[in-house]
Amino acid sequence: MITTANVKNGVNVDQLVETIGAVQQNPELAKFEFKAKTNWIDGGHCVTSIKEYYGVGQDMTRDESFNMECDHPNVLLGNDTAATPPEVVLHALGSCLTGAMVYHAAAHGITIEGAESSLKGGVDLHGFLGLDPEVRKGFDGITFTLKVKSDATAEQLENLAKFSPVFDMLTNPTPVKIEIIKQ
Amino acid sequence: MITTANVKNGVNVDQLVETIGAVQQNPELAKFEFKAKTNWIDGGHCVTSIKEYYGVGQDMTRDESFNMECDHPNVLLGNDTAATPPEVVLHALGSCLTGAMVYHAAAHGITIEGAESSLKGGVDLHGFLGLDPEVRKGFDGITFTLKVKSDATAEQLENLAKFSPVFDMLTNPTPVKIEIIKQ
Repeated sequence: MITTANVKNGVNVDQLVETIGAVQQNPELAKFEFKAKTNWIDGGHCVTSIKEYYGVGQDMTRDESFNMECDHPNVLLGNDTAATPPEVVLHALGSCLTGAMVYHAAAHGITIEGAESSLKGGVDLHGFLGLDPEVRKGFDGITFTLKVKSDATAEQLENLAKFSPVFDMLTNPTPVKIEIIKQ
Repeated sequence: MITTANVKNGVNVDQLVETIGAVQQNPELAKFEFKAKTNWIDGGHCVTSIKEYYGVGQDMTRDESFNMECDHPNVLLGNDTAATPPEVVLHALGSCLTGAMVYHAAAHGITIEGAESSLKGGVDLHGFLGLDPEVRKGFDGITFTLKVKSDATAEQLENLAKFSPVFDMLTNPTPVKIEIIKQ
């Protein structure tokens, strides 16, 4: 007998239901820890490698690292070899809002036929440069505009997207502990 | 006559001082808007392209796009072809804290000889899966551990790193507006 996996929006719904069941039986499986190593090259140029994480009760290691870079454009004193950190945040947010919508739509039997988005975030360098303590250093706000093909309503889709972890990390305070080790 | 640029930590300090002077004369030059386009492939797999931004009073376009992907590991129903969005956040944060420290150190005449860091962020999937509304969807906290070679004190270096825009975006609420356009 050939069985066909129940896949919607590219998500294996059977496996999703199994995952939820496993987490309900053993809550420890839901605890994940993601990790990264960032090495400084020079100026604002850094390289990050991502390989290991902890999840589903065990240490996990990928076969190869995912390597990513950050740099700055010439007008911000860089060599423009890679995206800036705030642009990388837009990538993480756009991918996370989209993925959250797609996964939760699959769980609810909602078909997503297509999704493409644009993001923009404004920042006033008076904050980063230390010229005005009243101006924040990060984005004063981000707009995510999503064009989506689906029978669901825009309100339904927005509510599904808001399960996004990165959306939560940005809109609500996320504690960041800094440990400096002098060498 | 040959003049030598005043470069510290890979940062052109003369250009940095000029930039600050230009912003003080014309505050509009400090307004930047960063942009990204994120296209959905399937499941949690997305591709982002970054090319244009607004800054120093004009629309800027790079010669080529920076393209980045996100995916999920198999245990999170993906194909593990790229880092997850929360891991990409760690990359952005690590690069931004490092770059902010390096730029501000250069401005203060502090030499950074080397810097490498590790980051980790914990998350409980009960939040994302909608199994417990009391559990947050994003990281419950991030730890950034930086090994640095410099004559400055750890406290000085931490204060310089905290000029990071991405550190501000995560530790303080950043408004995110979601616009859904049905197609």
